[in-house]
Amino acid sequence: MTDETRAWQTVLRSVETDLLAGVLKPGDRLPGERALATDLGVGRSSVREALRVLEVLGLIRTATGSGPSSGAIIVSTPRGGMSALLRLQVAASGFAVADIVDTRLVLETSIAATLARHAASGTAPKLTESESLLDAMEDASLSPAEFLALDARFHASLAEAAGNQVIVATMAGLRDSIESYVVAGVPTLPSWPDAVARLMREHRDILAAVRAGDADHARGVVHDHITGYYAETGLSGSAAAAASPHSAPTSTEGPIA
Amino acid sequence: MTDETRAWQTVLRSVETDLLAGVLKPGDRLPGERALATDLGVGRSSVREALRVLEVLGLIRTATGSGPSSGAIIVSTPRGGMSALLRLQVAASGFAVADIVDTRLVLETSIAATLARHAASGTAPKLTESESLLDAMEDASLSPAEFLALDARFHASLAEAAGNQVIVATMAGLRDSIESYVVAGVPTLPSWPDAVARLMREHRDILAAVRAGDADHARGVVHDHITGYYAETGLSGSAAAAASPHSAPTSTEGPIA
Repeated sequence: MTDETRAWQTVLRSVETDLLAGVLKPGDRLPGERALATDLGVGRSSVREALRVLEVLGLIRTATGSGPSSGAIIVSTPRGGMSALLRLQVAASGFAVADIVDTRLVLETSIAATLARHAASGTAPKLTESESLLDAMEDASLSPAEFLALDARFHASLAEAAGNQVIVATMAGLRDSIESYVVAGVPTLPSWPDAVARLMREHRDILAAVRAGDADHARGVVHDHITGYYAETGLSGSAAAAASPHSAPTSTEGPIA
Repeated sequence: MTDETRAWQTVLRSVETDLLAGVLKPGDRLPGERALATDLGVGRSSVREALRVLEVLGLIRTATGSGPSSGAIIVSTPRGGMSALLRLQVAASGFAVADIVDTRLVLETSIAATLARHAASGTAPKLTESESLLDAMEDASLSPAEFLALDARFHASLAEAAGNQVIVATMAGLRDSIESYVVAGVPTLPSWPDAVARLMREHRDILAAVRAGDADHARGVVHDHITGYYAETGLSGSAAAAASPHSAPTSTEGPIA
């Protein structure tokens, strides 16, 4: 491994050091490619390689129409990076779909319990968006894909209400990573309208348990909601797990967006 | 945004599609830079940018001494990618340290409960490595850094025994992302030997609760173990959370390894 081969790592390390030291912070503009190359004593192609990595990890946004001398902007959008990582790892069999689904179960039951504890301690959780989404999902003219997209947003809205941004980003990544498996679940259901009715009842039950401040019950309702759909699809193994309704929606974006 | 600017995304999308279709799988070799560029109709610099992204995400390993015509090997090492992502996001303030620590709490309590349930159902969890690590940690000549490194490995060994690879990789990433904050915790402790004695007692209690098959108790012991250290350091806010013993060890690797 020659030094030049690893020169892009020098650039990454420099950016990380500057971020940790507070020299760089969200909203700041990185120096242009040419300036970075000169400052760090590496080739411009190495700078460009490091910038792509930072972009995929959600650390920078390159401005539209930016020339080689205008720098990228430091942003902080962990969600996109997490999605890219988990999607590619699932594609490469680095992660089993069943492990992805089980991780969602762990995170989502904890989210429900957290929200319920907030309610119990007198801090009403912010559930306005979650409620609006459920109202929108009552529309009987929704296609399964539309319903599942709103369903995924409902679950994300609970994560956002609970407030832990690491969990919000991880959940988004987990969902995106198995979205290609989700479509397979719907046709296996005995009846889509019956499934919708059950899912909606369970969604309302989740909000009710949260509002009642009953953490154990909220945890249980979420657990049964997710594993129930798994059972109803009648699939086995990881394909069944992948068909959880909580892995929607189908995105029109590219694999790395 | 010109097409050429986004050409590296074309390369990534192509690799993802091939992975999903099973055309590419772990152990396979990607075509060389020149061949990929020709096949996909993009410039070689775009190919190189995409390869760096895949490398950081833990999807490929570039062979030592590889020339431009020899291809990278598909691997599946999600851990490194997760660490890179979380470390840089913490550095860029994308994630608060307190959220990182709370996420560890969610994952680690669930790991303990899972292991206890396995024990209760007659499937003895594989705790040999965890026990060996605790035995090694009894050595009174260990420095705090050495002890904390073993402590982190003990927690990782429980995650591995529980078997969910997404959680294993996420925990490794969470730990690495806050390792630079950990060192600050030790000097604030009233007594390092007393802290070690308490931590060791708690570690043994965790294994005992797991073996007894008591999921609720195992969950509680892990919870108290993590939050107890937080309290003992007497720090406040995210700095205190960062000083959890479960965020070691100090690595000698670069920021992106």
